[in-house]
Amino acid sequence: MMKMKLVAVGSLKEAYWKSAFEEYAKRLQKFVELSVVEVKEYSVQSLGSAENVIKAESEAILKELQGTVVLLDIQGTMVSSEDVSQLLQTYAGNGVSAVTFVIGGSHGVSAEVKQRAHKRISFGRITYPHQLMRVIFAEQMYRACTIWHHIAYHK
Amino acid sequence: MMKMKLVAVGSLKEAYWKSAFEEYAKRLQKFVELSVVEVKEYSVQSLGSAENVIKAESEAILKELQGTVVLLDIQGTMVSSEDVSQLLQTYAGNGVSAVTFVIGGSHGVSAEVKQRAHKRISFGRITYPHQLMRVIFAEQMYRACTIWHHIAYHK
Repeated sequence: MMKMKLVAVGSLKEAYWKSAFEEYAKRLQKFVELSVVEVKEYSVQSLGSAENVIKAESEAILKELQGTVVLLDIQGTMVSSEDVSQLLQTYAGNGVSAVTFVIGGSHGVSAEVKQRAHKRISFGRITYPHQLMRVIFAEQMYRACTIWHHIAYHK
Repeated sequence: MMKMKLVAVGSLKEAYWKSAFEEYAKRLQKFVELSVVEVKEYSVQSLGSAENVIKAESEAILKELQGTVVLLDIQGTMVSSEDVSQLLQTYAGNGVSAVTFVIGGSHGVSAEVKQRAHKRISFGRITYPHQLMRVIFAEQMYRACTIWHHIAYHK
């Protein structure tokens, strides 16, 4: 089973985001070995500048990157759900056993994280709150796996 | 205050989607007069074909369209959150007092609904479950209004 690691800045706070994420994570775990690492979210107030926030969060992210790395990036390559599924299938076909997905903080990630990423994909040009982005990620990964394994999407 | 009407196929079932939608709808109502109309969702099993589903759902949608109509369409013009905000501001500047947004069913909408739409916008090329799409809609409209009114986005 493919190992899928999600590295995300910040944690889920609202109960509805937690429940939604857990629902899709549970479904996803039938297809991949999912692990989630939450990296500390910093504020401009505490670190003085957005640059410092990016630096602190990105250093923590870099320590967690394993295997093939995919960055979720609003400016990345626009993908469809079929593209996401194809990406996972290609990795599996190429013998990739571990994929790490990264959801950066609200100020973005460092150039180093971007360079470390094998792929930068975008789910659209709209800005999402981080917690919602995590829910969307889990749902899309579950959807990608249902396409991959020719299984009906459970609504 | 601008009237914003959402016409969506199907209803919110899971408690977490309901809570998330209500949270953003509540925030949004500080900026617009929001109303939500849920149109009956049909299944291929009950109507025999996807075409029949599109026809039945679209006829119900057409009856609910008022004022300027914006269709959320995976194949529409890709927009950013700033674009969505600009769209609302332009409508307001042009004296538009009522905007209807449409979220179609899983099989899409008829050519008539597409033609009736003044604008077809896309939040991305990935496929979302309908309930999640409604949450994303409410969040984006709230975000668009905060950009419009220069108010800090409440995380």
